[in-house]
Amino acid sequence: MELIPGNTLITATPQEGRELALAVARKSIGAIQPDADVRKTLRPGYASDAEALTMAAHVVAVEFATIAAANDYWRNQP
Amino acid sequence: MELIPGNTLITATPQEGRELALAVARKSIGAIQPDADVRKTLRPGYASDAEALTMAAHVVAVEFATIAAANDYWRNQP
Amino acid sequence: MELIPGNTLITATPQEGRELALAVARKSIGAIQPDADVRKTLRPGYASDAEALTMAAHVVAVEFATIAAANDYWRNQP
Amino acid sequence: MELIPGNTLITATPQEGRELALAVARKSIGAIQPDADVRKTLRPGYASDAEALTMAAHVVAVEFATIAAANDYWRNQP
Amino acid sequence: MELIPGNTLITATPQEGRELALAVARKSIGAIQPDADVRKTLRPGYASDAEALTMAAHVVAVEFATIAAANDYWRNQP
Amino acid sequence: MELIPGNTLITATPQEGRELALAVARKSIGAIQPDADVRKTLRPGYASDAEALTMAAHVVAVEFATIAAANDYWRNQP
Repeated sequence: MELIPGNTLITATPQEGRELALAVARKSIGAIQPDADVRKTLRPGYASDAEALTMAAHVVAVEFATIAAANDYWRNQP
Repeated sequence: MELIPGNTLITATPQEGRELALAVARKSIGAIQPDADVRKTLRPGYASDAEALTMAAHVVAVEFATIAAANDYWRNQP
Repeated sequence: MELIPGNTLITATPQEGRELALAVARKSIGAIQPDADVRKTLRPGYASDAEALTMAAHVVAVEFATIAAANDYWRNQP
Repeated sequence: MELIPGNTLITATPQEGRELALAVARKSIGAIQPDADVRKTLRPGYASDAEALTMAAHVVAVEFATIAAANDYWRNQP
Repeated sequence: MELIPGNTLITATPQEGRELALAVARKSIGAIQPDADVRKTLRPGYASDAEALTMAAHVVAVEFATIAAANDYWRNQP
Repeated sequence: MELIPGNTLITATPQEGRELALAVARKSIGAIQPDADVRKTLRPGYASDAEALTMAAHVVAVEFATIAAANDYWRNQP
């Protein structure tokens, strides 16, 4: 199963880095619960639960910290 | 969807870095739950729940850690 | 709204750094829930709940990690 | 008990690093609860619980941050 | 209120660093809930609750990460 | 009370580093709740609770991040 789209942490911009962080977090859930139907049934519940959304945003923040460090925080982007 | 306002982590001051951290955390929620109406219905609940507020503050703290590192902690600001 | 007192992460000592971490964490809650009256009503609840206090202490620890790194851990303080 | 497959954090690619993060997180659970039968009984519950899945993904994100740093973020991979 | 015993993060050994991490975490709780009597009433509850103990241990781990970095991980201790 | 076995974060291999992370996390619980009998009564509950196990694995992941950094990620191990 593909866990890191493109198999690299290097992106051109912070926006792309953030998109990668979201994708990687989602792929993690898919690796832990491979059954897409189960995941689909869970969606309405957590997507309308403030704490569940905040917990998901927290995972994205941790993934983004790693990706941002990998890209030296895009300090040298034009 | 714009996930990183200005598509950069570089800000002039810690205050702006903190504002960016808040904005990025909110955008994360928007990316995970794109339906603005749903998000609006969640607001009263979490905004009057101490643990939910603390969880949200925790996400902001993690985002800020990344942005602060990106800006070398604004050590050299005048 | 002021999110970083003094708009700097640089402090003279670890004690001041810790005070800044507490202040920044509190300001985060204020930015997410600007209504001071609501925040006041939440205080009795979380301030007598061990898990809520621990969650708050966790946010302070994350903020302090950022502030300590900004100050190179006050290694060179006299 | 083997806690780190291959007893190294160095991997050829981010994908392999992510697989190692998932494996290490699972081994942690095995070290804390060595009884495989107990772990098996827990699987249906957490695997269909959005918050439990998000908590697990959070652990993977923290493990991956360590492994990515160990591999200098695979910056120099061909 | 003293938040960092000795107002330094520098310790001679990892053991002392760990003791400082525990002390700093406890002082955080004291700063957030200054009423010692309230804190005393909370003790029996969280001290016999596995999740509350784990949450507290998590805060200590985050504080220790900061203190260990401050001491360059005591790499050069004799 | 011994909080860091061997009073060092330096280990020969990642496996030993992981074992140290598990030991340090457990010692933290022991420092917060010194009563071994109480801890024993808690074991059955959390050891058969997926979220409690995941929370414990999260603490181990944070401790391991510190120990791995201390050992420069065992990059130079033969």
